[in-house]
Amino acid sequence: MTDELRVVPLQGIPELEEGDDLGVHVVRAAEAVGGLRDEDVVVVAQKAVSKVEGRVVHLADVEPSALARELAVEGDPRRLEVILREAREVVRARPPLVIAETRHGFVCASAGVDASNAKGPGTLVLLPLDPDASAAGLRDRIREVSGVDVGVVVSDSFGRAWRRGTTDVALGVAGIEALQNLKGQLDAAGYELHATEIAVADEIASAAQLVMGKTSGIPAAIVRGLRVRGRGRGQDLVMPRDRDLFR
Amino acid sequence: MTDELRVVPLQGIPELEEGDDLGVHVVRAAEAVGGLRDEDVVVVAQKAVSKVEGRVVHLADVEPSALARELAVEGDPRRLEVILREAREVVRARPPLVIAETRHGFVCASAGVDASNAKGPGTLVLLPLDPDASAAGLRDRIREVSGVDVGVVVSDSFGRAWRRGTTDVALGVAGIEALQNLKGQLDAAGYELHATEIAVADEIASAAQLVMGKTSGIPAAIVRGLRVRGRGRGQDLVMPRDRDLFR
Repeated sequence: MTDELRVVPLQGIPELEEGDDLGVHVVRAAEAVGGLRDEDVVVVAQKAVSKVEGRVVHLADVEPSALARELAVEGDPRRLEVILREAREVVRARPPLVIAETRHGFVCASAGVDASNAKGPGTLVLLPLDPDASAAGLRDRIREVSGVDVGVVVSDSFGRAWRRGTTDVALGVAGIEALQNLKGQLDAAGYELHATEIAVADEIASAAQLVMGKTSGIPAAIVRGLRVRGRGRGQDLVMPRDRDLFR
Repeated sequence: MTDELRVVPLQGIPELEEGDDLGVHVVRAAEAVGGLRDEDVVVVAQKAVSKVEGRVVHLADVEPSALARELAVEGDPRRLEVILREAREVVRARPPLVIAETRHGFVCASAGVDASNAKGPGTLVLLPLDPDASAAGLRDRIREVSGVDVGVVVSDSFGRAWRRGTTDVALGVAGIEALQNLKGQLDAAGYELHATEIAVADEIASAAQLVMGKTSGIPAAIVRGLRVRGRGRGQDLVMPRDRDLFR
């Protein structure tokens, strides 16, 4: 696959606001570490994408429904209201924890609704409406600004069933494979692999998280050295309902 | 956290047999890429560890039970028998797919039982009996042979609920944190983070998978540039039953 993988954090990107040009910020931050190269994968935290896309809600503007008041045992019912609006279905609820399926088919805590600490305790950040479109748009903008053809992953931290802790996954993907299907390929011993799919875009998001951190305020990273060019989408990683043993 | 992360595949390790000295193989393969350094994390595929530990079963030696015959709709009932023996509980079964909880508390396909292609179609590889002990033993042996104090992760490819494809996770851990608990830490904007745990050892396993591949026969990689030294265990990543919303 590759000789060596490098994961380089993109530092110095300021706190983002609606309408900010994320592509320009990424290209500039990359220049400080030698610039982007073709076949690089740029991983950008969902929160950064959502902020520039204006996917922000102020609690002061939210009127909670009766259901939201009921579910919000100890929390703010307005926050629950926002989560319910983002949810296609509540998968599990053990207050204050709500696991929901989003409009995109992602199953995650709070339907992806997150506090925006930088914008103050009264502000929530929602997932992008279409993370694959966000990834494709950022990819186009980076090419426009820098002439470089990168892949893009929009990442977020998700919990998992049966395992503790979050790992970063790919919500949106552009320019690379999301799933690597090894069916029909031969392994090192010459035997054919059956039904093996690797979620490479999720693994790329996880690798990037290791340098972005949660406390260090680094919203993007470059993953360099992979040969994963392709036409994958974040939606490829969503298990179709009829194949899902856990819904 | 770090400036830059590097993930270096360890090439040239031969097909392993019971009793082989994996520590020596890792140290030698690392010498070809400049040698190991303190604070490196060595990620080793579970299959390599299981083989040197003799966790291999020959189908010819297996007598299937009635239940195994019943569940093995289209497959080999002896394979099902081995899976059932490795399982503490079958979580879901949709033949030929069996999701089971192992003795270690891992929830995964086929209770972690895998075909050993290199050893021929009649051979299965089981998970190590105690992957944390395997990781600690390999860490000690690497220190003994090379004088270098590395962290070790024993990795395997697991499917997930709700998402397609596998990502690599950490079954066994030595010398590093497995979970990073950010509770009480401040984010970039100075707000305290609540109940945030990052499964760093799983993310390290995923990053390593990107260079190890499934078809390239590379059983180990170095992950360099992290500051994750600690006393974590793979067992830290297993969700306790009473906190699990999905069992």
